[in-house]
Amino acid sequence: GVTKKILVIPGDGIGQEVTAWGRKVLETIAENYKHTFTFHEGIMGHVAIEATGDPLPDETLEKARRSDAILFGAIGHAKYDNDPTLKVRPEQGLLKIRKELGLYANLRPIKLFDDLLHASSIKPEILQGADILFFRELTGDVYFGEKQRSEDRNSASDLMIYHKYEVERIARKAYDAARTRRKKLCSVDKANVLEASRLWREVVQEIAKEYPDVETEHMFIDNAAMQLIRDPKRFDVVVTGNLFGDILTDEASQIAGSMGMLASASVGDAIGFYEPIHGSAHDITGKGIANPLASILSAALLLDISFGLKEESQRVIRAVDATLRQGYRTMDIANKHTPNEFLLGTDAMGAKVLENLN
Amino acid sequence: GVTKKILVIPGDGIGQEVTAWGRKVLETIAENYKHTFTFHEGIMGHVAIEATGDPLPDETLEKARRSDAILFGAIGHAKYDNDPTLKVRPEQGLLKIRKELGLYANLRPIKLFDDLLHASSIKPEILQGADILFFRELTGDVYFGEKQRSEDRNSASDLMIYHKYEVERIARKAYDAARTRRKKLCSVDKANVLEASRLWREVVQEIAKEYPDVETEHMFIDNAAMQLIRDPKRFDVVVTGNLFGDILTDEASQIAGSMGMLASASVGDAIGFYEPIHGSAHDITGKGIANPLASILSAALLLDISFGLKEESQRVIRAVDATLRQGYRTMDIANKHTPNEFLLGTDAMGAKVLENLN
Ligand SMILES: CC(C)[C@H](C(=O)O)[C@@H](O)C(=O)O
Ligand SMILES: CC(C)[C@H](C(=O)O)[C@@H](O)C(=O)O
Repeated sequence: GVTKKILVIPGDGIGQEVTAWGRKVLETIAENYKHTFTFHEGIMGHVAIEATGDPLPDETLEKARRSDAILFGAIGHAKYDNDPTLKVRPEQGLLKIRKELGLYANLRPIKLFDDLLHASSIKPEILQGADILFFRELTGDVYFGEKQRSEDRNSASDLMIYHKYEVERIARKAYDAARTRRKKLCSVDKANVLEASRLWREVVQEIAKEYPDVETEHMFIDNAAMQLIRDPKRFDVVVTGNLFGDILTDEASQIAGSMGMLASASVGDAIGFYEPIHGSAHDITGKGIANPLASILSAALLLDISFGLKEESQRVIRAVDATLRQGYRTMDIANKHTPNEFLLGTDAMGAKVLENLN
Repeated sequence: GVTKKILVIPGDGIGQEVTAWGRKVLETIAENYKHTFTFHEGIMGHVAIEATGDPLPDETLEKARRSDAILFGAIGHAKYDNDPTLKVRPEQGLLKIRKELGLYANLRPIKLFDDLLHASSIKPEILQGADILFFRELTGDVYFGEKQRSEDRNSASDLMIYHKYEVERIARKAYDAARTRRKKLCSVDKANVLEASRLWREVVQEIAKEYPDVETEHMFIDNAAMQLIRDPKRFDVVVTGNLFGDILTDEASQIAGSMGMLASASVGDAIGFYEPIHGSAHDITGKGIANPLASILSAALLLDISFGLKEESQRVIRAVDATLRQGYRTMDIANKHTPNEFLLGTDAMGAKVLENLN
């Protein structure tokens, strides 16, 4: 067995509730496969601001650097959403850790579990067979460009900026992945309006020449937002910038039935960082009804990508699949028209997956 | 009857094919209701670059200023999409005319015609009853902020910027509309990351106080892109910035069955500008299969908003409705599972609407 150190950062809101299950799944896998995983916990986001005044305390960042992988929950709190004038904000913690750890590539696989074919708002015949892997650039774009507020506070700006090397490295990662899949890559930008997008498109066109075996398509973001719903099967690998990736992958959650099903992996220079796509969901926090599967599937990605434990990773995915096949559903993936479904809360659902792991 | 001057700018690609039908509908209405509409034509986009080197020749802009309303088609050409280094680009014409005419509010109504309930990729039970009016800010944001390319051409940027007055005026227009509808307004931004969005949210919160009878909700763009597909009925009026509006409204076309069904009105300081939401669609240009209904419905918006001719506008919408009820479909709204549908090209479809106007 392998010996690894995992940092768990539950974060805010339902992050606390669901990440507990991602961790339990990792513990169970370690036990079953005779690996030694040691766990540490760190704080980030609103909880960290409350405790230390800082959304990403140095201590958490230090722990992160000394870990082999990080399992993260969610970030954000209604207090800040309702008051845009607050200077210190939970999300700054997440943005800073992404930047500090060089996590420039955010992988978001979108795939429907068979048993959820009817949970989506999209027609089953449109969804069946859809299988998309998003590469969202994660440490550039308007997220990290200079932010300004005029002195009279009457205007505000963010710089949308991309550097050639940033586009190159994410494009290469996306092309490499496309090679192992259906050999199709769609790059999404807004090159008909934005200069940053024109640079993006130029660079992707350059990198494309290194991958003549992969079919490249360029699409404008507005069109992509439409095509994703109209015909998700036309996509294989999608590569795009930070902002467009944020929007498209949330939208794509409807292809997988629910946001509560989607995991993501952020990788780059060294360590890997794993988190559900969903947010802190303050409207349902503390109710015990959040779907733990996105955190559990984030743990599966961690096993595969950071530890190279493919069999263990597949074992987790099969346990999730089995749980769904047995008819267990959290609220977000329930479908009142389907008979033989059992509605469970977060903990009961997590426990079913653990049972199916054994 | 009224006497009005209309400028028709077919633009590029299928713009040429579909705008002819928007114009014919206006001519027929003038005849039937004894109005005097005089028509002028102007060039813009790729066709204008080819003819004059300028995507918006002064002559077209002058004609625009001397008109009572403008009916526009579409803009863009594959040549520029494939070569992001070209300096003079068709879209610059559209952006410039929006700015010059002060068209800061782009209204995009999203409503499904009953007979198209099954044409969408979204389930009919999710769609039925959805009725959304988007207010997209149209002359600010990252579209118009300063664009830069570094000297070594290795980095590129666009400034995302909003001024308080820009947010105020679009917010007021959206709130005024919400008052005449279901009294719900959703403002979409990314205030958890972007400073321009935090200004946006602050200003909308201020304006909200003037409209205590309207229920206000603030939503992040990623969540909005998801909710729009998950539960479109939760939205009434949506107000958002230029870029987010571009993305969300294209996505929302799936609620109306097809992009080929959606019209938009751009208004502001003076004159109104009407155009389909769809683009120039170079893949189907010249094939005679484009859907003319978005242009025809743009003409209906023109009659209503610029000329105050409500009855005439309704008459056009009823003619479109009747045409669909008779089973006539262009390719984009055809559904092979529905019996009694007749597939028509652009001109045959346009002619059916004209018949139904008489
Ligand atoms: C919480 C927020 C800063 C974050 C983002 O926009 O990147 C989230 O939406 C995500 O997708 O991870
Ligand atoms: C053609 C393009 C510049 C335009 C835009 O992005 O505004 C179009 O997509 C639209 O929505 O009107």
